[in-house]
Amino acid sequence: MGASQLLQTLLSILNLCSRAWGASDEAYGTLFQNYGIVLFRGFDMIDIYGPLEVIQFAASYRQINVSLISETMNVVTTERLSSAMNPMNSSVWPTLPPTHTFETAPVPDVLIIPGGPGMRSPDMNRTLKYIAETAPKVKLVITICTGSGLAARAGIMNGRKATTNKTSWPSIIGYGPNTTWIGHARWVEDESRYPPVWSSSGVTSGLDLMFHFVETFYGADNATFISTIMEYERHRDPSWDPFARNDTVTR
Amino acid sequence: MGASQLLQTLLSILNLCSRAWGASDEAYGTLFQNYGIVLFRGFDMIDIYGPLEVIQFAASYRQINVSLISETMNVVTTERLSSAMNPMNSSVWPTLPPTHTFETAPVPDVLIIPGGPGMRSPDMNRTLKYIAETAPKVKLVITICTGSGLAARAGIMNGRKATTNKTSWPSIIGYGPNTTWIGHARWVEDESRYPPVWSSSGVTSGLDLMFHFVETFYGADNATFISTIMEYERHRDPSWDPFARNDTVTR
Repeated sequence: MGASQLLQTLLSILNLCSRAWGASDEAYGTLFQNYGIVLFRGFDMIDIYGPLEVIQFAASYRQINVSLISETMNVVTTERLSSAMNPMNSSVWPTLPPTHTFETAPVPDVLIIPGGPGMRSPDMNRTLKYIAETAPKVKLVITICTGSGLAARAGIMNGRKATTNKTSWPSIIGYGPNTTWIGHARWVEDESRYPPVWSSSGVTSGLDLMFHFVETFYGADNATFISTIMEYERHRDPSWDPFARNDTVTR
Repeated sequence: MGASQLLQTLLSILNLCSRAWGASDEAYGTLFQNYGIVLFRGFDMIDIYGPLEVIQFAASYRQINVSLISETMNVVTTERLSSAMNPMNSSVWPTLPPTHTFETAPVPDVLIIPGGPGMRSPDMNRTLKYIAETAPKVKLVITICTGSGLAARAGIMNGRKATTNKTSWPSIIGYGPNTTWIGHARWVEDESRYPPVWSSSGVTSGLDLMFHFVETFYGADNATFISTIMEYERHRDPSWDPFARNDTVTR
């Protein structure tokens, strides 16, 4: 059995176990208890707060911790990287204080990588290094929107399949020349090697991915309960994608 | 012509003008340029960040300012009000730094009142006073989710029609005994007196309300452009409501 086959086997066992454990609060609570979210200037708000709100409601039923992880402990702004990206000089940029730096953050079970205009910054070396070093240690990587492009920049998407925001498609797929980009998908689950990487399409698709995550690992009742409180009409088919289009999606 | 009729007439003129102005960037930019969002401990994230993300994208095309307004300049936490509301001792509570206090905030054109568990706090006198004093000075009040209950607590919903989160329905309608609560609605537009109050149902319904707002006042093309980037499938019918239910919605 080669290394790749071994990984596949281990992955299959993990998947089988974790999905079976979905019925048991104790087991999945242990499996996915600690979440880390990567912060950077110019993040997209819903990429973070969409999944985080689902997690926050789930946290009423099990002990869950979320770390908000950045280069420093300074507040992270949603402001665009340059004034050229804010041509009307608008002032609409809430900030988010991190809870940890890349150095102090505990290794999470689930690493969430959001997108947003800031993911294109040339000055992301420490962020990319953190993602590259941390991803192999976690149990699941989740990317939202153009976060899959950031994951690709960090080098963790080689040989994987993934999707991303369809409006940003042409530029994002360039970050992952060795990634199989799925052009018609609400979300994609790559389980070709450990850890799995689940990538969502644009912004609000992260809600559908996250509800699917909760349904898979925390149970369907929880997913229904939370989506009912949030009054969110879920898209349950990962191939549902009215935002895919011929001019941008070539594969 | 009585005072009520006069208000109705003024309101109709404003509506006609503003909807006609929807075609003109300059006009609606002036009409709805400054947004204020009320912050309080235990706010619901998507109640704020859903509409705010729509506004943020619109701000690429026109000059828009958002004030995040709270009692003090201390960061506002999403943490529940008491440990009893966090029974698993989870740590999943991002914070948001305000930009203004109730005393320093400019009077906005649009006042946005979010909901969340914290809206039930007994210790909200300054927040309620701010809402009561500011609402009459603005051009439009928008409430999201249980934010309509907070608006009712502030006394600005008397004689109006409104909706709210259907899961929280029985307790929220108690805050507004003189409000006509619409039990089957994605959002409700009350224009019975100036300023209008638009109220959304639960959490993500705020996105539908906000896209309807953008379509009405900033133009359909902008609404479509932004919802496409956000990959959000809009619900365009304000009476669409699969979350309404017999056991909670009595009217």
